[in-house]
Amino acid sequence: MSEHRPSHAQLLAFLKAEFPQNRCTLEEVDEDGSVVVAHPVGERELRPGNTVSGPVMMTLADVALYLAILARIGIVPLAVTTNLSINFLRKPRADRRVIARCRLMKLGKSLAVGEVWIFSEGEDEPVAHATGTYAIPRER
Amino acid sequence: MSEHRPSHAQLLAFLKAEFPQNRCTLEEVDEDGSVVVAHPVGERELRPGNTVSGPVMMTLADVALYLAILARIGIVPLAVTTNLSINFLRKPRADRRVIARCRLMKLGKSLAVGEVWIFSEGEDEPVAHATGTYAIPRER
Amino acid sequence: MSEHRPSHAQLLAFLKAEFPQNRCTLEEVDEDGSVVVAHPVGERELRPGNTVSGPVMMTLADVALYLAILARIGIVPLAVTTNLSINFLRKPRADRRVIARCRLMKLGKSLAVGEVWIFSEGEDEPVAHATGTYAIPRER
Amino acid sequence: MSEHRPSHAQLLAFLKAEFPQNRCTLEEVDEDGSVVVAHPVGERELRPGNTVSGPVMMTLADVALYLAILARIGIVPLAVTTNLSINFLRKPRADRRVIARCRLMKLGKSLAVGEVWIFSEGEDEPVAHATGTYAIPRER
Repeated sequence: MSEHRPSHAQLLAFLKAEFPQNRCTLEEVDEDGSVVVAHPVGERELRPGNTVSGPVMMTLADVALYLAILARIGIVPLAVTTNLSINFLRKPRADRRVIARCRLMKLGKSLAVGEVWIFSEGEDEPVAHATGTYAIPRER
Repeated sequence: MSEHRPSHAQLLAFLKAEFPQNRCTLEEVDEDGSVVVAHPVGERELRPGNTVSGPVMMTLADVALYLAILARIGIVPLAVTTNLSINFLRKPRADRRVIARCRLMKLGKSLAVGEVWIFSEGEDEPVAHATGTYAIPRER
Repeated sequence: MSEHRPSHAQLLAFLKAEFPQNRCTLEEVDEDGSVVVAHPVGERELRPGNTVSGPVMMTLADVALYLAILARIGIVPLAVTTNLSINFLRKPRADRRVIARCRLMKLGKSLAVGEVWIFSEGEDEPVAHATGTYAIPRER
Repeated sequence: MSEHRPSHAQLLAFLKAEFPQNRCTLEEVDEDGSVVVAHPVGERELRPGNTVSGPVMMTLADVALYLAILARIGIVPLAVTTNLSINFLRKPRADRRVIARCRLMKLGKSLAVGEVWIFSEGEDEPVAHATGTYAIPRER
C-alpha cells in the first residue's frame, strides 16, 4: 500500500479540514507509520490545580490514532473510532505541550487497532496510555 | 453521606469553576444520584459528514461521571479520572444536543466506577456507551 | 433475521461443541435477545480468601456475549471477540454461582457490541461489569 | 523497595498457592520488574478452528499483571484486579505456547497499571494486547 501513503502536507491539510476546531499538530510520521502529534497547553486546556484536562488528552489520543491509520492506508475520510480506552497515569505539566506517539498494533481490512503513549513534552514518564480501534470502510 | 450532597446550584457552580472551557450543562440529578448532562451540538462540535466528533462525546462522558460522583460524595475537587473506556455505537444527529445519563456502579472509599449512556436528544438508540473509574482522595 | 434465531437447544449444543472445556450453562434467552448465562463456583473457581477468580468472570462475560450474538444472528462459528473490557466491582460470594446477564447495545453488519452484568446468584449488587465487541464474518 | 523484591522461587510458590487451578508458568523476571509468563496450549486451550480460546489469553494477562506487581512490591496477597481491557489482534497458533510480557506503566501507592503483550511462542506479531489496573491494599 506504500503508493497510497499520503505526504505530511496531505495529512496536515486533511487534519485541518476534518477537525477544524481541533488544535493538534502533526509533528512526525515515521517510516513504520507511527506518528507523533502534539497539543498546545494553555489556559483553555488547564483545569484548576494546573492539570491538563482529561478531554484534551482523549482528543489527542483519538487524533493520533486517526493520523497513524491514514499515514498507512491513505486519506480515508470515513474511518470511524469504534472504541477508545485510556488510562491516566500521572499529572501532566501545565507549562509543556502534551505529545502523543501512536503506533498501530494491527492494520486489518476492516479494523485497525493502535496504541498511544502521551507525555508532557521533554519528560520521560508517560502521563497517559490509550488503545483504540477504528473501523475502516469496506469499499476503498 | 446524604448531608454532604450538594445542591444542583452548587454542582453547577463547581462545574463552571472546574471546567471553565467546557460547554456541558447539568440537566438533572436524580434521587439515586444518577445525573443527566447535555452538550450543545453546533459548528464547533461537528465534523465533515455531519457527525458529532468523538472528543465531544468523551468530554461529555467524563464530565457526567465526575458530576455523578460529586452528587453522591459532595464537592471533592481532587477526584481524578484513572480510566475511561468508550464504545461508539451509532452516528449522532447533527441537529440535536447530545445527552449523557450516568449512574454509578460502585462507590467505594477510594474508587468510584460509573456507566454513561449517550443519546442524541429525543432518540431511543444510544450513540455511545462509556465506563470510567475515578480515584477519590483519601482524606476528605 | 428472526427466522435464523436458534433454539435454546441449538445454542446449548453449539456451546458444548465450541467451548468443550467450558462449564458455563445457558439459563435464559429473552425475547429481546438478551441472555442469562451461569458458571458454577467450586474449588476450581475459588482463590485463597474465598474469592471467585477474575478469569472465571472474564470467561463468563465472553461466553455470554457470544451467546447473545448467536441468539440474534444464528449460529455463526467464526465470530471472534475483538475487545473485552471488564470492571471488577465487588467480591463475589464463594457459595453461589456467578450469573451473567448480557444485552447487545449494537448489532451491526460487521460488529456487535454488548454489555454484561455479573452477579453472585440471588444478590442485588453486581460483582462485575463488562463490555465487549465481536467481529462478525462478512459472508454469512 | 528493592529489599522487598521476592525471588523467582517465592513468586512461583505464591502463584501455585494463590491460583492453584491455573497452568501459567513464570519464565522470567527482568531487572526493571517486567515479567514473562507462559501458558501451555493443548486440547484444553483450543477451540474448534484451532484457535486458542480468549479466556486463556485473559487469564494469562491477568496473571502476568499480578506477577509483575508482586515482583516490584513484594508478595501482597490482597491486591485485586479492578479493570482489565484486552484487544485480540491475530489468531494464535495452535501448536505453540502463548507467552505474555508484562511491564508496569505506573506503580502508585494505591493503584498499579500495567501493559501486557501476548505472542505465540517464537512469533514476532502479537496476538493480543491488554492493559489492567490493580488496587493495592493501603496497609502493607
